[in-house]
Amino acid sequence: MRLMGTAEQIRTVLDGRWGEVRQQVRTELDPADFAPPRDLLPMDEHRQRTLDAVLRLAGTTDFARNGLTREQGGTDDHGASVTAFEMLGHADLSVFVKAGVQFGLFGGAIAGLGTQRHWDAYLPGMADGSLLGCFAMTETGHGSDVQSLLTTATYLPESDELEIHSPSLAARKDYIGGAARDARLAAVFAQLVVDGEQHGVHCVLVPIRDEDGTVRPGVTVGDCGAKMGLRGVDNGRLSFDHVRVPRHNLLNRYGTIDDDGRYHSPIESASRRFFTMLGTLVRGRISVAGGAGAATRTALTLAITYAEHRTQFHVPSGEREVHLLDYRAHQAKLLPRLARSYALMLAQNALVEQMHRVATGEEDGEDAQRELEARAAGIKALTTEHATQTIQVCREACGGAGYLSVNRFADLKADTDVFTTFEGDNTVLLQLVAKGMLTSYSDAFHELDTRGAFFFGARQVTEAVIERTVGGSIIQRLISGSPGRDGDAALADRGGQLDLFEDREKHLLETLAMRLRRAGGDDADSFAIFNDAQPHLLLAARAHVERVVLEAFVAAVDATPPGEARELLDTVCDLYALSTIAQDRAWFVEHGRLSAQQSKDLLGAVDRRCAQLRPHAQTLVDAFAIPMAWRETELIADLGDVS
Amino acid sequence: MRLMGTAEQIRTVLDGRWGEVRQQVRTELDPADFAPPRDLLPMDEHRQRTLDAVLRLAGTTDFARNGLTREQGGTDDHGASVTAFEMLGHADLSVFVKAGVQFGLFGGAIAGLGTQRHWDAYLPGMADGSLLGCFAMTETGHGSDVQSLLTTATYLPESDELEIHSPSLAARKDYIGGAARDARLAAVFAQLVVDGEQHGVHCVLVPIRDEDGTVRPGVTVGDCGAKMGLRGVDNGRLSFDHVRVPRHNLLNRYGTIDDDGRYHSPIESASRRFFTMLGTLVRGRISVAGGAGAATRTALTLAITYAEHRTQFHVPSGEREVHLLDYRAHQAKLLPRLARSYALMLAQNALVEQMHRVATGEEDGEDAQRELEARAAGIKALTTEHATQTIQVCREACGGAGYLSVNRFADLKADTDVFTTFEGDNTVLLQLVAKGMLTSYSDAFHELDTRGAFFFGARQVTEAVIERTVGGSIIQRLISGSPGRDGDAALADRGGQLDLFEDREKHLLETLAMRLRRAGGDDADSFAIFNDAQPHLLLAARAHVERVVLEAFVAAVDATPPGEARELLDTVCDLYALSTIAQDRAWFVEHGRLSAQQSKDLLGAVDRRCAQLRPHAQTLVDAFAIPMAWRETELIADLGDVS
Repeated sequence: MRLMGTAEQIRTVLDGRWGEVRQQVRTELDPADFAPPRDLLPMDEHRQRTLDAVLRLAGTTDFARNGLTREQGGTDDHGASVTAFEMLGHADLSVFVKAGVQFGLFGGAIAGLGTQRHWDAYLPGMADGSLLGCFAMTETGHGSDVQSLLTTATYLPESDELEIHSPSLAARKDYIGGAARDARLAAVFAQLVVDGEQHGVHCVLVPIRDEDGTVRPGVTVGDCGAKMGLRGVDNGRLSFDHVRVPRHNLLNRYGTIDDDGRYHSPIESASRRFFTMLGTLVRGRISVAGGAGAATRTALTLAITYAEHRTQFHVPSGEREVHLLDYRAHQAKLLPRLARSYALMLAQNALVEQMHRVATGEEDGEDAQRELEARAAGIKALTTEHATQTIQVCREACGGAGYLSVNRFADLKADTDVFTTFEGDNTVLLQLVAKGMLTSYSDAFHELDTRGAFFFGARQVTEAVIERTVGGSIIQRLISGSPGRDGDAALADRGGQLDLFEDREKHLLETLAMRLRRAGGDDADSFAIFNDAQPHLLLAARAHVERVVLEAFVAAVDATPPGEARELLDTVCDLYALSTIAQDRAWFVEHGRLSAQQSKDLLGAVDRRCAQLRPHAQTLVDAFAIPMAWRETELIADLGDVS
Repeated sequence: MRLMGTAEQIRTVLDGRWGEVRQQVRTELDPADFAPPRDLLPMDEHRQRTLDAVLRLAGTTDFARNGLTREQGGTDDHGASVTAFEMLGHADLSVFVKAGVQFGLFGGAIAGLGTQRHWDAYLPGMADGSLLGCFAMTETGHGSDVQSLLTTATYLPESDELEIHSPSLAARKDYIGGAARDARLAAVFAQLVVDGEQHGVHCVLVPIRDEDGTVRPGVTVGDCGAKMGLRGVDNGRLSFDHVRVPRHNLLNRYGTIDDDGRYHSPIESASRRFFTMLGTLVRGRISVAGGAGAATRTALTLAITYAEHRTQFHVPSGEREVHLLDYRAHQAKLLPRLARSYALMLAQNALVEQMHRVATGEEDGEDAQRELEARAAGIKALTTEHATQTIQVCREACGGAGYLSVNRFADLKADTDVFTTFEGDNTVLLQLVAKGMLTSYSDAFHELDTRGAFFFGARQVTEAVIERTVGGSIIQRLISGSPGRDGDAALADRGGQLDLFEDREKHLLETLAMRLRRAGGDDADSFAIFNDAQPHLLLAARAHVERVVLEAFVAAVDATPPGEARELLDTVCDLYALSTIAQDRAWFVEHGRLSAQQSKDLLGAVDRRCAQLRPHAQTLVDAFAIPMAWRETELIADLGDVS
């Protein structure tokens, strides 16, 4: 599709650093191959169609190879890989997820946890689709608490093999994409036992099917059957009954068994080793956030285009037709969500750039990795939550038409639904974010302490902790130039808004740290203190991520050349900032950050921004530049004759 | 199922006046016949299965006859009819909706809009299932604005017939349940034209298929095809090309054509006539609210039972297992929603009783009817919104397991999704509620004025308007005995809570009326004023319905004999009241009803109520007494071996 003028300028801002990759996907993939099925297919037919699409991707694109380093046979263009993948989020999400399993999870485990031997042996087949794999982490008994997995991988010195075993039903691998039908090789996460000693969770490659598809001896495969959505993905279950594989099937980058049958690891602490291994898999979360964002933009494009054309009632005077989007309530449903989608997309772009820098070694070290993981967790949680809520609102905004499968909301909703709980449950991920914040906080405290600066207050500590994300200098300039958070003008000023976001985060973090300091020991009381603070902790995490997202938006606006596109983006940014503050305005009043009157005025200000953006709503969704084949519906067709 | 002790006592409170009917459904229907399909069936198979279930209901129960008066061949037990129907909301919702179309909408149109002639000719076949019908109101071009329908019914004096015609694609009847496959007779809403004069929308019975299923000449039938959910319902489209039916096919209770071809109506105003006709169909909305409530209770039962058994992490000390429901964040997700479900169920019971009184003539007159309609609209809007949000939260609370079709959330979500926009879009319904409030307000103003009481302030007017719903005297006693809304104790006191709910409603209504008074004329400015006030108007409606719901809860607790059940219900009521205030606490602070400190403390108070109810959560869902066959899943089965 060709866009003109402002929409085209905004597209280039949104498309970001890998905009060319986006344009390639838009123009070079045959959309029909990847479009969601127009009718509900029988499950097996949908699975075959999905597999075919993934094989076509493997055969005709650089998706997989871009995500590998040169030693791994790739091009080291990690950002391109993840961005192309994000674009698939506009298409059939079964393809998105199945490709994610093959290239992202299965391929990612081998690339991230394996060594040259594994890269040479498996990555070419992974990338060209001749070796289909799956990623067997989650168990029936343990999802979020991966560290407590029950499957075992026991080293047998006599035969120099590893024995993979599922000791109970709880140890069964569950919901594993690819396990039910297509995967031949499984990356199995299991407790590694060498010479009677447990070394924690490691990943072992276990063949589960022969070339002809026959399930291997000792492996039991189950089918998760019908699911709410993602019906093209063959999720299944795996149990292992003393299945033996060669020792070298252990992906041994972070823990290996030498020729003498002894365990070695470059990381001494079992717990740190475990989290390092998990860290290499961060791309999965980033991709899920990307796909959720893309699906949300599809929904908004449909609902806003519909609202531009559909009439409901006549104005009292009878003559003029009122389009749905003219109603304040309809604007209030869709436009703040559109603004949040913009904000999250720009934050996602910044996240992908950060991931690319870490993957290429441009940013290095434990801190960079930890920050990336926390950011990925936070953006994933907020973007998938936003997707679930927004696609719902968009469906309802299209009434009965929105309920028909042909109009896409059915699959958008059902397919993305699981995004809030897979690749990390959102609640657990936000806890991870808060944990990261607390760690930085206590590190900073400790550092100040050892510098003899014990007289510093909590405020100084948080100042040190709240690292600005992107364009730190712009943010600082805006905050310094703001009229101050107490003045009535604060809300209308970008610096004042930034200050409010930051201030909320600081306050929540400081008070959280104080609250948890009381929980020193390892006993039940300590659990009770943590548990009572859980809602507080989740708020702090959310405040943090919302601040990071706002900063990404501000930086992107700042980088846009002056003109209509920039002005429009600035107003969208305003709507994101104001509607986010408005949603939590009780907090700001309760903590003396806003007066009751300011809080009250906020709702009117949000409504006014919506009214201001209303004439540009179509431009703003056109700028998403979603290929027509992926948003072809009957929504507008039927209206042609109607209005 | 047999419940004991407290759960059983609570069950009788929740079951309400038609508890025996609920027990009959629980024990006498063969649940397997009505259970949702375990696997996704091909569409036509699901449609056949659904039809079979509806025919079985028609053959073996009094569902349909209970909803008819004695003149109509029924038993006049309207409350029993609607209550039995509500129980089907726990089963396959395709059956619920298809039965609703046949007995509620199609049957209801004939019963409510027809006369003895139609009752005799059609109701026996409607009730025993030998005459399948559909309800053809919505058009492709008009959903909410029924008054603007385009289909015409023109009287032809020469042949004494009515000619039904669809002049455009926009006039096509759309989303009509039963039209695609099974219905033989359609109740078609069309603009009646007699002797060149338009008389507004009337309902005409139009045969669309012969006995053998052949579509009748002049009728074009389309199939809406796959939908997000309700796949057992054959929604379709109907167009009419000058189709002629006898004059007597006009359902002529409110408007008739005499033997001389002249139009008569007992109601002069076309607009009032139209709204009177619509009013007879109020039962559809009540039933949708009932079904949504039932489906929500199924979801809560599943998610809370799962959370009682499922463990996630260990406590830091390692020994004790923490069940999901022990986490504060998990409690915060589920328990306030459980409390709201209780509140809405008790309000629904009160609504059904009110409907029964109006239907039997125990309550009479235009005011009673108008109040019933407004209440039905409000409860429908809030209950279906609650259903969509809560079933979502419940799915997420069960993680990946919640995503598998076998665990029911897939169909609960997809099937109920359309409830927020059919039988009246929720936004439009809340506007209807607000309109009713404003009418009462201006009536009261006018009345006071004519009594020379022009010096009365707005406050006195609203006092007169806010009629207490049920147990008015209890409510009044509680408010009078409260410590006053300013005291810190107000929030902990039921009277204080009631006062806050009522006060919010009054304030929103008064200020809304003032705001709209400026919009006197019929011009574009007037539309702008209304439009700008739309968010305010929706808030007022919501505040009204939430107050009505709280009063129903309070009255039900008051009617419960002292003991553990009553104490538990009282705490649940507290949680509903506090969490509802907490959700809108910014408003209360902005309008000086709560101090910033009170507002802040509120969140802690909600958390404490959740903790208090946590040990009783299983009892509270057991009291819903949902037949096992309708909540059979693998959720708990898999855990047996796990924990």
